[in-house]
Amino acid sequence: MSWTLTADRIAELARGAAVLGTGGGGDPYIGSLLAAQALAEHGPVTVVSLDEVPDDALVLTVAMMGAPTVMVEKLPSLEEVIAPVHALDTYLGRPVTHVACAEIGGVNSTIPVAAAAALGLPLVDADGMGRAFPELQMVLPTLYGVTASPLAFGDEKGNVGVLNTADNHWTERIARVACVEMGCSIMISGFPMSGSVAREALVPGSLAHCLAIGSGITAARAAKADAVAATVELLGGREFFSGKVVDVERGTTAGFARGRARIDGADSSLDLAFQNEHLIARSGDEVFVTTPDLIIVLDAESGEPITTEGLRYGQRVRVIAAPSDPRWHSAEALAMVGPGYFGYDLPSHRFDGTAERVLEGVTA
Amino acid sequence: MSWTLTADRIAELARGAAVLGTGGGGDPYIGSLLAAQALAEHGPVTVVSLDEVPDDALVLTVAMMGAPTVMVEKLPSLEEVIAPVHALDTYLGRPVTHVACAEIGGVNSTIPVAAAAALGLPLVDADGMGRAFPELQMVLPTLYGVTASPLAFGDEKGNVGVLNTADNHWTERIARVACVEMGCSIMISGFPMSGSVAREALVPGSLAHCLAIGSGITAARAAKADAVAATVELLGGREFFSGKVVDVERGTTAGFARGRARIDGADSSLDLAFQNEHLIARSGDEVFVTTPDLIIVLDAESGEPITTEGLRYGQRVRVIAAPSDPRWHSAEALAMVGPGYFGYDLPSHRFDGTAERVLEGVTA
Repeated sequence: MSWTLTADRIAELARGAAVLGTGGGGDPYIGSLLAAQALAEHGPVTVVSLDEVPDDALVLTVAMMGAPTVMVEKLPSLEEVIAPVHALDTYLGRPVTHVACAEIGGVNSTIPVAAAAALGLPLVDADGMGRAFPELQMVLPTLYGVTASPLAFGDEKGNVGVLNTADNHWTERIARVACVEMGCSIMISGFPMSGSVAREALVPGSLAHCLAIGSGITAARAAKADAVAATVELLGGREFFSGKVVDVERGTTAGFARGRARIDGADSSLDLAFQNEHLIARSGDEVFVTTPDLIIVLDAESGEPITTEGLRYGQRVRVIAAPSDPRWHSAEALAMVGPGYFGYDLPSHRFDGTAERVLEGVTA
Repeated sequence: MSWTLTADRIAELARGAAVLGTGGGGDPYIGSLLAAQALAEHGPVTVVSLDEVPDDALVLTVAMMGAPTVMVEKLPSLEEVIAPVHALDTYLGRPVTHVACAEIGGVNSTIPVAAAAALGLPLVDADGMGRAFPELQMVLPTLYGVTASPLAFGDEKGNVGVLNTADNHWTERIARVACVEMGCSIMISGFPMSGSVAREALVPGSLAHCLAIGSGITAARAAKADAVAATVELLGGREFFSGKVVDVERGTTAGFARGRARIDGADSSLDLAFQNEHLIARSGDEVFVTTPDLIIVLDAESGEPITTEGLRYGQRVRVIAAPSDPRWHSAEALAMVGPGYFGYDLPSHRFDGTAERVLEGVTA
């Protein structure tokens, strides 16, 4: 069933995207500014479910690539957002019919809204991850054999490139060094898929889910209910830690925002490690949750999601674990997005809704 | 007047290219292997003078990009050489009609021969520099407003990209980081030009000149004459130093072979600084020749050119200065290829055939 996305929903979409971004994906606020502008200029966007996409459609993902720390300082123009799509149109020799989100976290939930509005195309209610991940090959379509390339990229200076690579990891490698050289933040479009492939390879319903999470926080707050608990329920997750941010180490290296944060609870400390997104949550040697499952930091009072670049000393936070799309737990998927890929010599600690120990200080 | 380039001339072309490469441009031997193979498989190449290129021709340069230190270990296949040309064919939507050399030094004098043979296209007797330079925007066409992009690049793994950039410096920047990521050596094709623009912007007759230099060394050696003197005469240059290589510092950084060499003469030492190509020749504070004029190191006995990566302790060498194409001495050109661009706080010391002091130990 198709529905219409209007400008008044963008703030809630962005809030949900900050939750699903698991700390990364870029601050959705900048994407929401652009989406609101595009909807104001070009009218609302039609969101179609995967079921409604014709088999022979040409679906492309549209995304911002780069370090979130830099993205927040470089709001792209609408022209910049759609330039890679036009480059692919030309390269493929046929018109794009649908826009999709590569990831449903962070800025890349709202940027495709802006693209769809500016292009006058429907947006698919789906995404490639069900969350956010830091590298472009880290989407379920890669597991289904969908090639990232031809993938186009562009920047605010008018530079545009089209890559056709040996595999999706090479698309990431070449686009990433270009991204760093071009100022650590570029627009990309790629993963051309037919409707039938998109139906198989994407996560269905993620835009609606993201909106529900965002509006759930708003509604809980209005009702003076616990917004964190509302989010936990929508995610099928669990709150497993609460405390005060006491230490944040953050650097922008090789095109990523990498770092770690420490949160002190009543009796113990939680260490979070991130590369754009939160990857590992542990206390001393005890590991609680790891990528690909979701680690989400929320403001303890308001339930507002906090991105890794927004973490500050003294914040009172509550930390949620939630299950990822189950397809991320296959051996092939874990090789791509598991702890080992990011350099952690740890098995993946799968969140199943019951196995996580609830630590001290949790109020819900 | 057109002429035919056959496999038996390739060794001499490569030798001349090592002279005009001023130490850089990659070891022409690896390009000569590929050119000989292409001529054997596809037959001889027709070389046409710039006068013969139709006004509406589509001329493209074909070149290898990367660190010469790496190029010598990565002989490309013919498929790899022509893949970027095919990518541009498709991108431009019309067939390429002529191949041209971006530079007449090093591997990039013989690689276009291989490309022309494999593509069945005529090769233009011209190049973009009249020598070799380390960065891709450093061609006379840049001064005539010819855009490097669309520029295509490709590697041995099957990765291909097409860039359309804001200016030629951005083409260099993005292609260079891609090149480094792809293993420090890639094939490129770009600078699409009409015949009339090529006539204005390229250096005419450079292939024939290069062949004459190479065969001049061979002939002098056969006649037991001085091969260095023969080269000096063909270049309109001057031998200004001779001695023994006593020190070579060389590193491959940011995609370039950078370093310096010291040559001890009878009473003084000559210091050469290079970035792929020789840039500066000086003795203490006294500067003798600088980029864009040519600094060429030849074996003292055989007159064989020595590339910067071929410099070794103990070699007895003679050093030549020769004038570049005069267009390289405009203020705009010097901003692009003069000593200052490479980080040397020196005025350009123009070689005029008489101004250079002849130092001790010179035998000619």
